[in-house]
Amino acid sequence: MKLKIFVTLKPGVLDPQGKAIHHALESLGFAGVNDVRAGKLIELEVADATTDAQIDEMCRQLLANTVIENYRVERA
Amino acid sequence: MKLKIFVTLKPGVLDPQGKAIHHALESLGFAGVNDVRAGKLIELEVADATTDAQIDEMCRQLLANTVIENYRVERA
Repeated sequence: MKLKIFVTLKPGVLDPQGKAIHHALESLGFAGVNDVRAGKLIELEVADATTDAQIDEMCRQLLANTVIENYRVERA
Repeated sequence: MKLKIFVTLKPGVLDPQGKAIHHALESLGFAGVNDVRAGKLIELEVADATTDAQIDEMCRQLLANTVIENYRVERA
């Protein structure tokens, strides 16, 4: 089973990487960019028997820092 | 207009970050993980007038390294 985990910073958490990308886009002449947020995409190939609870545990223990990050799981 | 850009390593390109995550998951006792690939998710808030060609240029010039990475754009 293929999984995609999207890890994004919670609203209000400062995002220096996103700010740097925003600045770089403007320096390159791209106008009309209002906001940039940088996150992570983790693609997992797991055994079909893996339960939702196990996937949730992986996210909470390792893949996302739930203090500052949200995560979303998508089955592909 | 909100955009999500998914940047993933091309197949065959070595992914040390994914390997490290895979190893860490196994160390934590999660069995049944066969493969892990790490990628990036960049969320952009751009002017509605931004064209597909401009978005493509942003990806090619800055957001993705097209030598080793693929990217996919999703309008949200």
